[in-house]
Parts: sequence; structure tokens; C-alpha cells
Amino acid sequence: MARSMGAVRLKKANPSTLAIGTLICVIILWFLVGSSGPDFSASRKAAAASHPLSPPTFPFRKSRSGSFKKPPPIAHYNLNNVTTTPHPAENRENVLILTPMTRFYQEYWDNLLRLSYPHELITLGFILPKTKEGNQATAALQKQVTKTQKYGPEKDRFKSIIILRQDFDPPLASQAEAERHKLENQKIRRAAMAKARNSLLFTTLGPLTSWVLWLDADVIETPPTLIQDLARTNESIIVPNCFQRFWNPEKNAMDERPYDFNNWQDSDTALEMAKKMGPDDILLEGYKELPTYRTLMAYLYDPAKYRFETIPLDGVGGTTLLVKAAVHRDGAMFPAFPFYHLIETEGFAKMAKRLGWQPVGMPHYKVGYATVARA
Amino acid sequence: MARSMGAVRLKKANPSTLAIGTLICVIILWFLVGSSGPDFSASRKAAAASHPLSPPTFPFRKSRSGSFKKPPPIAHYNLNNVTTTPHPAENRENVLILTPMTRFYQEYWDNLLRLSYPHELITLGFILPKTKEGNQATAALQKQVTKTQKYGPEKDRFKSIIILRQDFDPPLASQAEAERHKLENQKIRRAAMAKARNSLLFTTLGPLTSWVLWLDADVIETPPTLIQDLARTNESIIVPNCFQRFWNPEKNAMDERPYDFNNWQDSDTALEMAKKMGPDDILLEGYKELPTYRTLMAYLYDPAKYRFETIPLDGVGGTTLLVKAAVHRDGAMFPAFPFYHLIETEGFAKMAKRLGWQPVGMPHYKVGYATVARA
Repeated sequence: MARSMGAVRLKKANPSTLAIGTLICVIILWFLVGSSGPDFSASRKAAAASHPLSPPTFPFRKSRSGSFKKPPPIAHYNLNNVTTTPHPAENRENVLILTPMTRFYQEYWDNLLRLSYPHELITLGFILPKTKEGNQATAALQKQVTKTQKYGPEKDRFKSIIILRQDFDPPLASQAEAERHKLENQKIRRAAMAKARNSLLFTTLGPLTSWVLWLDADVIETPPTLIQDLARTNESIIVPNCFQRFWNPEKNAMDERPYDFNNWQDSDTALEMAKKMGPDDILLEGYKELPTYRTLMAYLYDPAKYRFETIPLDGVGGTTLLVKAAVHRDGAMFPAFPFYHLIETEGFAKMAKRLGWQPVGMPHYKVGYATVARA
Repeated sequence: MARSMGAVRLKKANPSTLAIGTLICVIILWFLVGSSGPDFSASRKAAAASHPLSPPTFPFRKSRSGSFKKPPPIAHYNLNNVTTTPHPAENRENVLILTPMTRFYQEYWDNLLRLSYPHELITLGFILPKTKEGNQATAALQKQVTKTQKYGPEKDRFKSIIILRQDFDPPLASQAEAERHKLENQKIRRAAMAKARNSLLFTTLGPLTSWVLWLDADVIETPPTLIQDLARTNESIIVPNCFQRFWNPEKNAMDERPYDFNNWQDSDTALEMAKKMGPDDILLEGYKELPTYRTLMAYLYDPAKYRFETIPLDGVGGTTLLVKAAVHRDGAMFPAFPFYHLIETEGFAKMAKRLGWQPVGMPHYKVGYATVARA
């Protein structure tokens, strides 16, 4: 499937010392939207003529009237409008939404479509594993992409969409091993996820990107104003509180529970534990063997409190995470190795702090994770 | 000058906790080479119609003949040819040459032009400070860019060129302070350089980039086959040995001396020193106060030995540094904070090792740094 859509493998020649190789396949869907759209405007046509990996450059192109007698063979771009402000929509700031995906949820796509942030300012980037499950997800994703970008109303269409495919080499440990070495397996899984996030980030971030929104493929329910709401805090790294709907047999009804335990404030206990660890050990939340006594944002939700309250965080999760592009450009990425005994998104938070950026959480601002089906 | 060429400032809203802010200005020079070139070919015209931030996509575009009755409004790209091999030119691998620049050397540009690697596979990326000196360098660079890309022979022209401008906020310590706090100042300087490298890297790396060549603006003398020579080692992170020409009053003649002391193999002494350091201390080479007894590649040069010999390294410099794009995509960047008591390119080497990639040096393969003028 991927190959028929056009795919590329970036080969690595030196995988011998590498725990998890990341062979990447790239599919770029570039929408040269033709005359089929009902409300097709000239400005969109001009924007579509630019490259998917960066925002449209045509609107920034300098007028050629002036001192030149004939058009010069060199095109200059006047890119004066890139900012990162609490009012990103009004200031026409470009947002890159990045999603690692193993399974396609229709509700995820429907929720994306409902985002009220101007879609012509949004670029979508996906990375999916080169597995059977990943192939199925890619096919399902591409179907919706085509539907929206080709046949959907103009307001729904995103500026551009990039799909990367990633191989794991050697493959992740099997489920049986996962059970036997739960903690160790979690470390491997999160290292692989960190590399996937980095591949996606390093490949898609362009010179005109103002914001990066990390959005898990299972996040199916956010306020339509998600991007605007998070940005209006005037912070640089912002996470809302993620909940999961599930069937509660005790209540014999649907219920919800806190979901993302990677959003936390550090504790003296956790810091003491880290001090005594070996250099390659990591601290993980949610294991009885490792009680950290950190303050978990997941448990701080209070509907009676101010929805836009922010609290400083020391660790963040990646389910829904808005980051100023400048934070990543400074070098903040997702460590696939223990970094201050932290890994992946939690390691990212620590790295961002080392670079002078303070992550914050919004404990009373809720987003919804994919419902667990009734057993 | 920069503004007249088209520039953008990526604003940061949270600089309070930040030692060195990196406001970036972007200038993209996209060469829609017209009919002025003497040997202008159809294939180049097609390539030029793609975006500067990634290699030409037109050669990869799938043929539209086949099952479609009329061209669909969605363009698919078949990107099957991205590899990273010991024979990059033969395999048409795209190289991104990245150069942080504060001063423009004509000899640097002339040396770039002499590189025998196919120029149509090379994208150049520069980052220059927003200072008076940086403005002058930008003007000089742009002049040569225009000359080469517009009027030069077709074989000299590079695929695309991206110029970023970077502010320092607050400005770097003055020279007087530099003298008083040499070591501390070096740390600040290298942190700023690390952020500049990261901004350049994160902004310019595209899905079709196979290799990144870091080349200092003062490197003015390399073999024309530099890229091919480094790649043929079949390694992932490769540094040659950098020398500087200077006037030797004792010999009353020009002479040369080792230049880049960041290429080293670790020593027990250095590792012991690191153990005793505070968490934010860094180890630097070339200070009498900090004798590390590391093995410096700079001193290993021997013209009698095999020019393509490689040795493993624990620290690398950035004067001339070839890196597989996959290494960066895994997350290896230039830490602007002490990372295992290392910073910038030396920290990059350590981070790459943590990700499973082994840096190597070529002690007997020489490149030349800008001559120091006769006093």
C-alpha cells in the first residue's frame, strides 16, 4: 500500500551497535488541489503551489515591481510575519501537528476536522510503523486524507500533509517478553517512540513553523479551540489534562478516568531515588515497584476551578502537547536514552528546562483519550 | 540589507529564564533559474521548480499514465531513491552543507565551488548573527550566491540555499569580560553556537536529505573529493584532521599547525575529573587549568600513513564533520547545556554514542583552516 502511494526508505548503514534502528519511509501528499473544489480561491491555489514541508511562500514573495526592469531569475521571499504569540490565529501563525500513529481512529480524524484553528495554517505530520498494523492504519489515514483534501469543503482542508513510515530493526520484543520484563520493555518501547518523534520532528519542522502540537493518535475529543486555548496562556510548553472514557461495571455506565501520568511535578522521593540509580536506569510512573510520590497532574482536575489555570511541571506526556517551535530549534528533542533518568517526553521536559524553557500544565482543561470498548 | 532581501524573526515569548535567546531571521533564496544560463537543461528547470528545503521532487513524481483517466488533483511522490551509502554521488544522495558564519571568506566560497560532488545534489544552509559583522558577512555571502547561482556555469550552481539570521539576547559578554572569565565565557560562547547549529539543523533537514556536512566558515582548503572521501569510509560520523596555515617567524616562512582540539579519545584522567565536577561544569580542551590528557587527533597526523585510516573518537569538533542524516533524525543534536560535562559538538559526539552511533576521525586526512594573517 505504502509503496503504491510512493515511499522512500532512508537506509542506515551502521545498525550494528543500535538497539532499535529507525528505517523511515516517507510519503508526501502534496495537494495540488485542482478546479474540483467548490470554493476554490486564487489565494489557496497560490499557497498550494508551494512545498508541503513549509508554509506557503507565495504570499510572502516580494513584488517584482520596482527597480527591476525584467523579472530576475532569483526569487526572494519576504517572510516578515512569523511570530509566536498568545493569539496565533489572528497573527496567522503556522502550526505543525505531529502524530505518531499505530492505529487509525476515525474519531481522531473527525476531531482534527473540528479544530477551529484556520486549517490553511495547519500542516499535519504522521509517522507509522512498517508493520501489518501500520499498513492498515496508513491505508485508513490516506483514505480520509484524500476525502478531506480532495472532496471536502475548502475550510476543512489542511495546508499540507506528510506521512513517514518507520521500521523497527530489530523488532520490538514480543508480548510474551513484554510480560516478563515489563519495566525493561517499557524502556525499549519509549526509546523507540522517542526516535519516532525525533524523526518526525527533524524532518518536518520548517523555517515558517511557529508552533508544534504533539497529538496522540488516540486523542479523539478536544475543544475545537484547543490550539487557541493552549496558546493564550502565553507559555512555551503547555499540556492539558487527558482523560479516558471507559465502561465502569460498578456504575453500570460509561465513566472517565485520568489517563496521562507523565505530567508531573517532581518529589524529593523521586529525586532521591534517581540519585541512587545506575547511570542507565530510568524512573517510570505507574509501577508499584517504583513509588515516586510525584504530584501527578492527572489527579488535580477540579471542574470548579479556573479552566485556564497553569501549574509548572517537571515531566510532560505527549498525548496533547503544544510547544513553541523555538523550543525545539534550541535543541529540545525526545531523548531515546536515559537523560537525568528520564526518557522520551519526560526527558524532553527536563531538556527544555535545561535550555531555559519552563513546561506548564493545565490541570482543569480536559481532553479525551480513545474510549476503551466495553469488555 | 537582510530585510531588503526578505527576512523573518521567529519571536520567543519567554526569554526571561534564558541565558541566550536565539531570534532567528530567515532568508530563503530559491533559484528559479531562468533562461540566462548558457547550458540550461530541461531537467534542471524541473528540479528548480521544487522547494529549496528539500531535494527536487519532480524527478520522483509518479507517471500519470495508467489507470487515471484524467490527472487527479492530488500529486503523489514516489521517493524510492533515498539511501546513505559509501558511494553517495553514484547513488544520487542529497547532501545538506551547514555553516554557521560570522565572517565571510572568499576562499571558503571558492573552495565550496571546487567540490566535485554534484552541486545539483547539494543544499547550502547558513546561519549568521544579527550584528554589524553578521550583516556584512550576509551581504558578501549573498553577492557570491547571486553570482554563482545566476551567472555561474550550470555545474557550479547548488540546488538551493537557505540563509538564517540569528540574534543573541542578551548579547554575548564583551571582550573585557571574556578576558576576565575565559573559561566561563567559552561555555557561553559554545552554548550559543550549539543553539545556532540546532536552529540551522532543525529548520533545514528535509525528508530527502541523506547526509549533513558541517563546515566551518573558515575552512578554506579541502580536497575537491571531500564528501566522497569521508563517505567512502562507510562510517556514520566522520571528521578529517583540520590544520591552520600561519606565518612562522622562527622559520620566516608560512607554516601550518594543528587546529581542531575537539577531536579526541577520552582519557582516564578526563573521566576522573568529570566525576568530581559539579553537575553544570564542563570539560574543555586547551586550558592549562584543566589538563585532561586526552588523545588529541590533531597531533596524530602522519603523512606517511594511510590517508583513509579511521580511529574511534569520543569527542568531535565541527570544523568539518560529515554526519548521516539518520543520526540527527534519531535525536542527536548539539547540547547547549553540559551533557556528561560536554557541550556543543563534543556533547553531540557523546549523544550520538548514547544513541548507538560511533564517531570516527581520519587523522591523516587533512583539511585547511583560514590562514592567520602575518602580524
